[in-house]
Amino acid sequence: MQIVLAKRILHANDRIAQDNRGKFDAAGVLAVNVLGSPGAGKTALLEAILPILGERCRAAVIEGDLATSRDAERIEAVGVPCVQINTDGGCHLDAGMVASAMDALDLAALDVLFIENVGNLVCTAGFDLGESLRIVVLSVAEGDDKVEKYPPMFSGVDAVFLNKIDLLPHTDFDPERVQENLRRLSPEASILRVSARTGEGVGACAEWILGRRKPS
Amino acid sequence: MQIVLAKRILHANDRIAQDNRGKFDAAGVLAVNVLGSPGAGKTALLEAILPILGERCRAAVIEGDLATSRDAERIEAVGVPCVQINTDGGCHLDAGMVASAMDALDLAALDVLFIENVGNLVCTAGFDLGESLRIVVLSVAEGDDKVEKYPPMFSGVDAVFLNKIDLLPHTDFDPERVQENLRRLSPEASILRVSARTGEGVGACAEWILGRRKPS
Repeated sequence: MQIVLAKRILHANDRIAQDNRGKFDAAGVLAVNVLGSPGAGKTALLEAILPILGERCRAAVIEGDLATSRDAERIEAVGVPCVQINTDGGCHLDAGMVASAMDALDLAALDVLFIENVGNLVCTAGFDLGESLRIVVLSVAEGDDKVEKYPPMFSGVDAVFLNKIDLLPHTDFDPERVQENLRRLSPEASILRVSARTGEGVGACAEWILGRRKPS
Repeated sequence: MQIVLAKRILHANDRIAQDNRGKFDAAGVLAVNVLGSPGAGKTALLEAILPILGERCRAAVIEGDLATSRDAERIEAVGVPCVQINTDGGCHLDAGMVASAMDALDLAALDVLFIENVGNLVCTAGFDLGESLRIVVLSVAEGDDKVEKYPPMFSGVDAVFLNKIDLLPHTDFDPERVQENLRRLSPEASILRVSARTGEGVGACAEWILGRRKPS
């Protein structure tokens, strides 16, 4: 009974996700699902990357959170349009929530749309939002065993942004271990080292995203 | 339809949780649900606390993970009995999983049982496992906005172990902000500052747990 219902929900989600994807493609929008644990630094990284992207393309953000509009306020403070989704305790975004948020955005006026998911290294993995790219933000403070321990999150991801790299000397984190485990799960995935706090690697992350835009 | 099913699942979970609680009480076991984000340092903290507890009481651990038996191996390496639950992708432990794991333990030979939940600051909050205490391990690297942003996790928690306190000088984390937000949600909750890595505060965490044991 549970399993049947779960399949039905996922089937419905996939239908809406395809619909979202069609709209993104038609408008030439690169939609990026930004995933990661609570506190991995997803919002901080967007705050750092958006001003760089802003000189080269038109970006917007959809923010997913259980509660508060804190993250949307942070994004708007850097001058980028943002729609906040509050899931009211829900553990992941789904395609329907994103479709509703899209109604508040003019896709024709956008090149890149970041969808910052709820901080959750488990449940967010299973829901296609219609995105073109999946990026997992992983903080070095979280430990180097996360790829092994949360395989669904890292399967089929396009890039891992290894954030808070400035903390590396103060941890036992081994970036090689992450790289090796990721190679097994997602051989094509890029790994970029970055610190939203010091700015190290932020330019390279911005370039990586710009390089994935569809030719118009 | 979804809501009805969710209620049914929670109802069934609560029944089993009550059953677990009855068994813990009958055996005089303090059961501690250890919650937190992926990489907050739950296992590392147990590795640090268990040798101290081991001199004063008999402890065991149930480890919840999506995949791998890494954490159970780490706990066994400090000489403490451990049962690994693999949720096969599931985002939280439930009371039934804990009941199964309890079958592999001799409760009569235990004083304290830690149940380390799946790394997840959302879904784990809703499932009573039959525990006597809830501890959230929050790493200072996760940022000081987590209590506001994940309120269900911090509602009714008995203690927050503010871990990786050695990283504090390298972050913008404000412990006062966490304290203030927690006071609003869970006025009775203790906050203990600790570093599993340096050992700072580990003794105080062990004492805090020992102080909550039931008089036999």
